[in-house]
Amino acid sequence: MSADSPRPRVGHPFEYFTPGRVFRAGPSAPIALDEIVAFGRAWDPQRFHVDPEGAKDSIYGGIIASGMHTMCIMFKLLELAGEFGDYFEGGLGADKIKWPHPVRPGDRLSVTMEVTGARVSRSRPDCGVVLSRVTTVNQDSVTVLTMESADLLRRKGD
Amino acid sequence: MSADSPRPRVGHPFEYFTPGRVFRAGPSAPIALDEIVAFGRAWDPQRFHVDPEGAKDSIYGGIIASGMHTMCIMFKLLELAGEFGDYFEGGLGADKIKWPHPVRPGDRLSVTMEVTGARVSRSRPDCGVVLSRVTTVNQDSVTVLTMESADLLRRKGD
Repeated sequence: MSADSPRPRVGHPFEYFTPGRVFRAGPSAPIALDEIVAFGRAWDPQRFHVDPEGAKDSIYGGIIASGMHTMCIMFKLLELAGEFGDYFEGGLGADKIKWPHPVRPGDRLSVTMEVTGARVSRSRPDCGVVLSRVTTVNQDSVTVLTMESADLLRRKGD
Repeated sequence: MSADSPRPRVGHPFEYFTPGRVFRAGPSAPIALDEIVAFGRAWDPQRFHVDPEGAKDSIYGGIIASGMHTMCIMFKLLELAGEFGDYFEGGLGADKIKWPHPVRPGDRLSVTMEVTGARVSRSRPDCGVVLSRVTTVNQDSVTVLTMESADLLRRKGD
């Protein structure tokens, strides 16, 4: 990619994300035990994320993924789905994050994002704020992560 | 560590986390550009996390850390501080997450956690739920991440 010939923008501008629209992403590849342990060692070294023996006496009875790991997988799946694409200018905030069920080795995650609101940004009139409800489930359709998200997107033509 | 001689528990039980208590963690080492890009490539491949050239035309004017990266650094600093330690049984949820200011290469982050509430768990009477307000600032005391957290901790003697 050279400065002379920028690639065309991918994804959708703010105006596309009208309340009620639903997007799906995933499923992920099965999450490997090694991947869970590596993430835990890097960022969240609780025994039930990094130590298969130590995890047995936790309330989970075995290794589970860090909640941060689950959130990262969710973000990655949504970005790979590409709905926001190059129009995305960043997350403003997230609310009501819950991890109602553990993520265990071998799980495959899928994500559903429903637009719940949209408004032009007051501080950045070239952008809009998209509100959404994001639900992540495992291969058995059990919900493992829910959150509400507020994201900044470029407007059409900007 | 053998099954015959488990190491003693570190950290503090639920009863220690009374409302009003304040804990501090950090500062982190300076966050390297390479580290920001590596995290972005793995989990949040927006141009303003992974591409120094592409980041220039974003609203940030340059590379910034993924909000997930900032959250991970916050969790790691808190875990290294060790207040919860082995009594920690997992995060239940998080609320009101805001990233009011970008994290840029070279920033050093520090965390303050204030206990705002505590109650015995209804579903797990051997545990308690600790509510807290967590604030992460950079080296200039500018707030880069705020959240409210609900965490499950073992009770004394359990």
